[in-house]
Amino acid sequence: MNENQPALAKLKARLADYSALKDSRKVLSWDESTNMPPAGATARGRQMAVLDRMAHELLAHERTAELLSLCEQELAERSADDVDVQLLSLVRRERDRAVRVPPAFFEELGNHAAQTFRAWQEARPRDDFAAVGSLLQRSVELSREYSSFFPDAEHPADPHIAISDTGFNVASLRPLFAALRDELVPLVEAAVAGPRVSTSFLRQHFDHDEQLAVGLELAKRFGYDLRRGRLDLAAHPFATSFSVDDVRITTRVNEGDLLDCLGSVLHETGHALYELGVAPALEGTPLRHGASSGVHESQSRLWENLVGNSRAYWQWLTPVLQQNFQQLAGATVDQLYREANRVERSLIRTESDELTYNLHVIVRFELELELLEGSLSVADLPEAWRQLYADYLGIAPGNDRDGVMQDVHWYAGMVGGAFQGYTIGNVLSVQFFEAAERDLGPQGDNFLAGSFDQLHEWLQRNLYRYGKRYQPLELIELVTGGPLAVGPYIDYLRRKYSELYGF
Amino acid sequence: MNENQPALAKLKARLADYSALKDSRKVLSWDESTNMPPAGATARGRQMAVLDRMAHELLAHERTAELLSLCEQELAERSADDVDVQLLSLVRRERDRAVRVPPAFFEELGNHAAQTFRAWQEARPRDDFAAVGSLLQRSVELSREYSSFFPDAEHPADPHIAISDTGFNVASLRPLFAALRDELVPLVEAAVAGPRVSTSFLRQHFDHDEQLAVGLELAKRFGYDLRRGRLDLAAHPFATSFSVDDVRITTRVNEGDLLDCLGSVLHETGHALYELGVAPALEGTPLRHGASSGVHESQSRLWENLVGNSRAYWQWLTPVLQQNFQQLAGATVDQLYREANRVERSLIRTESDELTYNLHVIVRFELELELLEGSLSVADLPEAWRQLYADYLGIAPGNDRDGVMQDVHWYAGMVGGAFQGYTIGNVLSVQFFEAAERDLGPQGDNFLAGSFDQLHEWLQRNLYRYGKRYQPLELIELVTGGPLAVGPYIDYLRRKYSELYGF
Repeated sequence: MNENQPALAKLKARLADYSALKDSRKVLSWDESTNMPPAGATARGRQMAVLDRMAHELLAHERTAELLSLCEQELAERSADDVDVQLLSLVRRERDRAVRVPPAFFEELGNHAAQTFRAWQEARPRDDFAAVGSLLQRSVELSREYSSFFPDAEHPADPHIAISDTGFNVASLRPLFAALRDELVPLVEAAVAGPRVSTSFLRQHFDHDEQLAVGLELAKRFGYDLRRGRLDLAAHPFATSFSVDDVRITTRVNEGDLLDCLGSVLHETGHALYELGVAPALEGTPLRHGASSGVHESQSRLWENLVGNSRAYWQWLTPVLQQNFQQLAGATVDQLYREANRVERSLIRTESDELTYNLHVIVRFELELELLEGSLSVADLPEAWRQLYADYLGIAPGNDRDGVMQDVHWYAGMVGGAFQGYTIGNVLSVQFFEAAERDLGPQGDNFLAGSFDQLHEWLQRNLYRYGKRYQPLELIELVTGGPLAVGPYIDYLRRKYSELYGF
Repeated sequence: MNENQPALAKLKARLADYSALKDSRKVLSWDESTNMPPAGATARGRQMAVLDRMAHELLAHERTAELLSLCEQELAERSADDVDVQLLSLVRRERDRAVRVPPAFFEELGNHAAQTFRAWQEARPRDDFAAVGSLLQRSVELSREYSSFFPDAEHPADPHIAISDTGFNVASLRPLFAALRDELVPLVEAAVAGPRVSTSFLRQHFDHDEQLAVGLELAKRFGYDLRRGRLDLAAHPFATSFSVDDVRITTRVNEGDLLDCLGSVLHETGHALYELGVAPALEGTPLRHGASSGVHESQSRLWENLVGNSRAYWQWLTPVLQQNFQQLAGATVDQLYREANRVERSLIRTESDELTYNLHVIVRFELELELLEGSLSVADLPEAWRQLYADYLGIAPGNDRDGVMQDVHWYAGMVGGAFQGYTIGNVLSVQFFEAAERDLGPQGDNFLAGSFDQLHEWLQRNLYRYGKRYQPLELIELVTGGPLAVGPYIDYLRRKYSELYGF
């Protein structure tokens, strides 16, 4: 370290170390999900905890604060759009958040989360909520304790939401989600009252390796570059990035359901295109990532739904699939498009269709708020879950395995802030897609021709390259010219599903 | 950190962090060789350099020295066989070595090594030694500079040898290797004067995936446990361990040569069984690894050669191979055993047979010493290489690609200390194997039956479990009852190859 360097260069050197620790940690985590032999889990948990702690210590270190203050003085005259100013602003926010929470809290949370996750893994197959109830109760308490470190928060969920969706809070999301729910419930009612769609084509037997090969071809067609990525199998598909030039996707394969694999690949490709599109100049800084959970999800859902579940796309895709899978020989575009967009009352969020999906999310969001407010006890949670499912989706689970124990989120750390990003992303996906079409004109003809580069380049130029330079609300304004709004999303759903289901 | 803990607990906590950084670094390196998309290389190099530097800083930190001194006082009364005393002794040695070298040296070396490696990758296919000559010259200078940080060393190669083979030095190795060379040269002469062995069975076409499947079955038969490991493809096969419960092997596959894959798998399995056999109590400390480069290589070679190239093993293996590969249907045990043990004057170390292998190593060892002494210039190196090959192996390369540019070692860091471990390992493999047979009786009948557990358990109990608790020379004494000696190795080779080649 040259002592004569400006403070900014010194701070960036620290941030490069910080980024290397975070990125290394992600390599370990990717390996854990894709390759690690089972007995490696204990040591891997320890290794990841050490990297987490070192990254936290580096950020929280007094020297980081000194350099940050020096840099803020050095750059005081620069504009808010200056990338270094944006970097300082992000690091200031992340550091302030990191130092509010005592290290002992994270240590206890880490141990508790590991214990709860193991208990959930054992209890869920046995449908034994009693075995995790007191652990979940403790998770709620820890989550409230976390909130208490942010005394300015209006709602105990706000500090949790701020972790992944900065700028959003309960006050802004609750009315938005309520409005969405009130529109979705009758739309779902109308769709399921329509003609029942068969799944006789897409739920035949499809060879495992051929599904993967076709999935990979579709990812490449969307612009995913295997010089800078790869596709692996994982029980719970995800995308992850180790640098702007190493962004990986995973999928699962269900031999009885072609869209399980293909849908996952499209979804994770959307996440990956975003991370691959971040400007290389942001490498080695905390700016090198998507803006937030919700904005990230907007890209996975844009590629999965706005592109991958559109009629034009299925018109192109149908003969492609028929070349690879002779069991689809007799299918028409319309039949496959309808199967792919079948609406169904169902219990499992990750398997649910585009129209019902947000209702699954809103159930969880509302329950989280009540748990954190203390207006719902963990003991009453299973029944509250069933009640909300019945109210919003018209169906309720007969057990807790597919109810309150369905998702890992509440059993792997804190309760709160884990779900809102999914629905923010769905809403945004339509706003971003419509912004692109306003600039480029309708994309249907491109999709018919299997051409997605124009859309990809627009997103790259107008959204991806910024990384975390803008906070989500600023970015939404910058890209769409307006704030987050559910109207376009509702209109899109009503247009699409009224045509499909004839209501 | 509880301030009332004894110093030993505090030191162990630091060492656990140190180990986590080193192990994480190995995960990144494994991924680089097995999975990483090509464009990921630049960022990966940076990430690994950060983890290296952080591990170095942790070890070199003044606080580590303070705790080490406190611990040495706390444990002053304990015996030299006490595991904590052994831990302190190892950490003391490693820290002393780490702090002698200024961080700026490692920074320059790292940059130089990366540049040299890239240049070598480009120059080798073009057979363009001129393009790397001045870089190699700088490597020699840096290697001498490294030696200068250890002014007590008798020979400039000694500090390099001490890195991977503590306890050995030029004074002890030079006469040993000279004696070995003088015995090997006439043995090779005698073998190649004998009847020429065909390779008509083992060098047919063998399916890629079937080779991998059979290789994995053999590894499992030797005791490799897939709950604690996995097999992947890599251009240059290696074994690596991330914890005592996650030890991975890699292999390459040559569809025209069955033993390329199977031999690599057996070799790497030997390394892996060693790391898997280290006592779990040593996890999270620097003791959790094989004792040295030479002792590690003794285990890869023991399983590859003493077991995997023995007649008894081939008697068991032949029908196993024939079940998997119908192209071997007409082969006899004797034919396959002879093909597997064919002796040949050849140019490439990694493809050479058991009898000639050490001559390849000794060429490099002697050249390294001369380069470091300054008695050989880099300009004269290609010719010196050809001369030694002609003298020892009776064959010399017509180009530098298969000569002085053959191995990566001299182009990936310092010159010195990289090769002696291969030959120490070969010599030790026979001493360890004979020690096992003295205890257990001859193992041939076990191998005939495809049973390797008795040998594996003996090695586990008498060698593997100790990890780095004993220094190599102590460990050799402990396991064999005597010092390193080339006699048993020469006797083994003479017995085996005079029988095979009728001299």
